[in-house]
Amino acid sequence: MKTVLIANRGEIALRVVRACRELGLRSVVVYSTADADSLPVRAADDAVCIGPPEPGRSYLNIPNVIGAALRSDADAVHPGYGFLSESPDFASVCADEGLIFVGPSSEVMASLADKAVTRALMTDAGLPLLPGTTAALRDAEEAERIAGEIGYPVILKAIAGGGGRGMRVVRYPDELADAYRRTQAEAGLAFGDSGLYVERYLEGARHIEVQILADRHGNVIHLGERDCTVQRRHQKLIEESPSPALDEATRAAIGAAAVAGARSVGYQGAGTMEFLLDPDGGFWFMEMNARLQVEHPVTELVTGVDLVAEQLRVAQGEPLSLRQSDVVLRGHSIECRINAEDPRRDFAPSTGRVERFRPPGGPWVRVDSHLEEGMSISPYYDALLAKVIVWAGDREAAIDRMRRALEELTLTGPGLTTCAEFLRDTILGNAEFRSGDFDLDFVRLVTQRP
Amino acid sequence: MKTVLIANRGEIALRVVRACRELGLRSVVVYSTADADSLPVRAADDAVCIGPPEPGRSYLNIPNVIGAALRSDADAVHPGYGFLSESPDFASVCADEGLIFVGPSSEVMASLADKAVTRALMTDAGLPLLPGTTAALRDAEEAERIAGEIGYPVILKAIAGGGGRGMRVVRYPDELADAYRRTQAEAGLAFGDSGLYVERYLEGARHIEVQILADRHGNVIHLGERDCTVQRRHQKLIEESPSPALDEATRAAIGAAAVAGARSVGYQGAGTMEFLLDPDGGFWFMEMNARLQVEHPVTELVTGVDLVAEQLRVAQGEPLSLRQSDVVLRGHSIECRINAEDPRRDFAPSTGRVERFRPPGGPWVRVDSHLEEGMSISPYYDALLAKVIVWAGDREAAIDRMRRALEELTLTGPGLTTCAEFLRDTILGNAEFRSGDFDLDFVRLVTQRP
Repeated sequence: MKTVLIANRGEIALRVVRACRELGLRSVVVYSTADADSLPVRAADDAVCIGPPEPGRSYLNIPNVIGAALRSDADAVHPGYGFLSESPDFASVCADEGLIFVGPSSEVMASLADKAVTRALMTDAGLPLLPGTTAALRDAEEAERIAGEIGYPVILKAIAGGGGRGMRVVRYPDELADAYRRTQAEAGLAFGDSGLYVERYLEGARHIEVQILADRHGNVIHLGERDCTVQRRHQKLIEESPSPALDEATRAAIGAAAVAGARSVGYQGAGTMEFLLDPDGGFWFMEMNARLQVEHPVTELVTGVDLVAEQLRVAQGEPLSLRQSDVVLRGHSIECRINAEDPRRDFAPSTGRVERFRPPGGPWVRVDSHLEEGMSISPYYDALLAKVIVWAGDREAAIDRMRRALEELTLTGPGLTTCAEFLRDTILGNAEFRSGDFDLDFVRLVTQRP
Repeated sequence: MKTVLIANRGEIALRVVRACRELGLRSVVVYSTADADSLPVRAADDAVCIGPPEPGRSYLNIPNVIGAALRSDADAVHPGYGFLSESPDFASVCADEGLIFVGPSSEVMASLADKAVTRALMTDAGLPLLPGTTAALRDAEEAERIAGEIGYPVILKAIAGGGGRGMRVVRYPDELADAYRRTQAEAGLAFGDSGLYVERYLEGARHIEVQILADRHGNVIHLGERDCTVQRRHQKLIEESPSPALDEATRAAIGAAAVAGARSVGYQGAGTMEFLLDPDGGFWFMEMNARLQVEHPVTELVTGVDLVAEQLRVAQGEPLSLRQSDVVLRGHSIECRINAEDPRRDFAPSTGRVERFRPPGGPWVRVDSHLEEGMSISPYYDALLAKVIVWAGDREAAIDRMRRALEELTLTGPGLTTCAEFLRDTILGNAEFRSGDFDLDFVRLVTQRP
């Protein structure tokens, strides 16, 4: 492997450029005309324009991305997250063109992209799953019948969903038909597939996910968990590792389950097994994400493992650089997603120009961002402006460090609003958050208080 | 402890401000008129002007600093490094005024400030010392007589010296008288004390120093070593931890010796025991520095211990937050000092205005700096503009990461030159450096090559 085409933009494109440089690999970044003057484009060894700002005509356009790879003599493609990162078609075309796809095989991705298929596979692998369907529902009537069997509340989810979109909790039978119709419409719009499935919804649960690394030599390890319970409408706001809710026995059990699940589908590369943790300490498989996650840095900071470097190593056919026994979690890490959105206006997206950007600094503060002063925030792409990640010896100190870091952060511009202050004061400053004892309803409850 | 007066400037003042904020302590920074608009002054909760730019009239002026502490209701003083940090007088006046001095007692500092006294104490504590005098030399004739006994080469050192200044290697007897005169004059100018001592000079040695933490409850631990062998004229340029030259047995032995030495003088707080490592693996005590070191971050990154937080904890009378068995070195860390100096003009100091400053970023890259665009580099203070520190799983990866980070660094302005490119290409790009097999003569040899 000599040249890696990075089929993404923003902070994750820059993250991969840096990893390539450290490994002596040439990096080529694709870009839409909206990103022509962006930091990752300038940081890479080379860059190729693949179309206009609309994602469907650039970052999601497989022929354009593949053309850029071939034109730039790339021998590998790193998809980042989002965009084409979980597209089995894209992985398949890469393989056909002789390009190494940095991720699992197209076949594995196809299985994981269909949540119903994944549920069936993981059931076979012995993982605990919440009661629900393992095939697409025919219609709302079938959903009602099955929901009646498994008991309310239930959650409707898009078969092709991911990233927290296309799902809806239904608490009472008379709400189901309407919820079914809405979720189906959303799923069709978002994923081009309106198929839904239904499962039991757990009250008081936490979102726990396990980072997996697997190579082509049969080695599958996990790198501990991330706790992503601080979510607003299924969108993660803050992630941390380790989880304050896991004891050592549960940590070992959930890690072993994640490894078993990844192994059973023949997974390769970096992936994430998502679970729900119920208040009694039981855990339930939800889905597997076949890519690097936005929140991968918290795992990197507690394990000391460079996940992007491992991805590139595995893609070249090398074995993992470490064994399970080498994985030791040290201290505590927290990530805050700094989104362009206005918490005072129901988190409405915000766009504008970055007039002043001063990232926080100092010991154990990491900022993953592609921002620069003078840059315009495009409405075409997701709202993530920067990730602020801290590490400290324990969770209390990590919270204090994050609050200090967010106090230091300056990110302003005409019309531009971010969630930084909301995260710092309303979430990190909250006594329940500090206690570690909260569930997936936390943000909703906190934002509803007068 | 509620309010900490920070009796320093530059990056270390900012480092302490950040630690105070994370611990819920109020911070007050002193400043000379040259630093009135500096980042640490703005970052602190409060700031007090203590005089004009000349250090003797501000940062070294004990009454002005103490006055600032009393005026701002400080109950503690953090001296940083340099300036008053190793002044027994300053520590003593702090104590008299009821201020907690963040460091060892005035008595301990007085012993350590006199290298001859220190040599005697450490000999008593059983530490290996190179043959030499343990009292101030009377004159050049006495120096010649003793040098003849211990054998050439020898090194002349200022009794009151430190920080690599006031020392000179003498290889032949007929060079001694002249060297004595020059070193004496330098020592008088630099430290107000022209007393010298002489010891055997080791060819092919490395500089290894051990980080110590000690509390008031009798706990003394070490946090592994730093290798500071990359020096130019006794000034450290690059530091790393762990040392590529120590095996586990030597690491344990030198750590134990450092703890024994610190314990024998009743040390409290963070301190550093400096040793020479000879090519056969023997080590020899040189001096103890009674303060935080410039290069403390490499220890922080491999141990995960926040040294400034520990200093503040110990100063309040709390026990250390960890025991010796909790200290585990993980991975490898390297620090590069980015000085305002011109390697092409024999490292002549450079001053000017910072027009463009873009610190490097990304995973495991830490930048400790007070720089801002538009700021002027004052000729009154030392040349340190920024410290770039990286961590990686092993030394090879850390070198690659540091080279990537220094490629990313932009630090330019009219008339301003730094050593960044020299460190990146000439030192980090050197095969001998990468091999780990080099000694204190390394930089001299590298810079002499055509």
